[in-house]
Amino acid sequence: MGSTAEEIVFYTNPMSRGRIVRWMLEELGQPYRTEVLEFGKSMKAPEFLAINPMGKVPTIVHRGVVVTEAAAICAYLADAFPVAGLAPALDDPLRGSYLRWLFFAAGPVEAAISAKAFGALPPPEKAGSLGYGSFEQMTDTLEQAAAGASPWLLGERFSAADVYVGSQVLWGQMFKTLPERDAFSCYGEQLRARPAWQRAAALDDALIPSRA
Amino acid sequence: MGSTAEEIVFYTNPMSRGRIVRWMLEELGQPYRTEVLEFGKSMKAPEFLAINPMGKVPTIVHRGVVVTEAAAICAYLADAFPVAGLAPALDDPLRGSYLRWLFFAAGPVEAAISAKAFGALPPPEKAGSLGYGSFEQMTDTLEQAAAGASPWLLGERFSAADVYVGSQVLWGQMFKTLPERDAFSCYGEQLRARPAWQRAAALDDALIPSRA
Repeated sequence: MGSTAEEIVFYTNPMSRGRIVRWMLEELGQPYRTEVLEFGKSMKAPEFLAINPMGKVPTIVHRGVVVTEAAAICAYLADAFPVAGLAPALDDPLRGSYLRWLFFAAGPVEAAISAKAFGALPPPEKAGSLGYGSFEQMTDTLEQAAAGASPWLLGERFSAADVYVGSQVLWGQMFKTLPERDAFSCYGEQLRARPAWQRAAALDDALIPSRA
Repeated sequence: MGSTAEEIVFYTNPMSRGRIVRWMLEELGQPYRTEVLEFGKSMKAPEFLAINPMGKVPTIVHRGVVVTEAAAICAYLADAFPVAGLAPALDDPLRGSYLRWLFFAAGPVEAAISAKAFGALPPPEKAGSLGYGSFEQMTDTLEQAAAGASPWLLGERFSAADVYVGSQVLWGQMFKTLPERDAFSCYGEQLRARPAWQRAAALDDALIPSRA
């Protein structure tokens, strides 16, 4: 560390998907600087739109490069700091499962949950042309992933895929956007027991004005 | 090659997102075996559901591991065969941009285009809680990425992110699911000029019964 470019700058809001990246950063164990942005205010200000034109958090800047999308940030940090052991090596076949579940949660899971939350799920006969098929197909596949976690998605080895996929499972349980399944409960319990998850939750909760 | 586990088995249909992976495989230059599945038939048969419970293509099997999700397959193949030079090295800061655009196209772009295609875009005031914000925000951000391609997303270096993000741009133009923008036309023209894109298109077109 030392040089500014090496510093990880973390733009977030404690009531956003930034909580996923906070957890990832706590698992990573590298120092980082937190910049809290307010919805509709500093998040839509020209200074931040110059960094992320979507005007959304989480966003990180590291080594002069902007990374957006919670799943991309998790994958990037795991790759940039191999010492943390949060991603399989490039030549490890497990990297296939790792990327599969990261993209499955960022694509089909996110899209189907959002569509359902807005009462905007297409009719079942359209399932063929949708990336996520139907909400039920997505849920069943996610359940199989969670049920196969022993204890983690890649087996003994905890990875950034557990942070991102696990966050989708935990949020789905908390906001009831996913149906109840034993596999989700078991996997969720293991995730919440991680010290890094607990540290991240405490740090973000302390930033919520009503709880501070 | 030689051993069965080293073989890349590619499950696809020529009228699916499998076309994206076909292009990636042609860019990769590694041998692979194609298995064509029929929608609603072999794609939903128990043999294939045992491989991918979503019953969807593209799916690949390599070194005994199943990889699904078109973007995950592109990222996996680029990582598994570094000799092809289709992904920045782990310690290259450009890997941040690479992962950002891959996940942006697999998440926000895919979700917003699907929602619009089904007339199921949530009202603008809900944009804050959606990963893709609004359709317009997604389009503007994708346009910025395409406009910054010189000629490729990472500069001089073509990568798997161009295959996946580029496919979204090409499909968006073909099916009119993206608005017309000069940046999309220019980027699309460069992509269609690639020999691997042309080989992939010819191979898939030849598999479509009416065109064979």
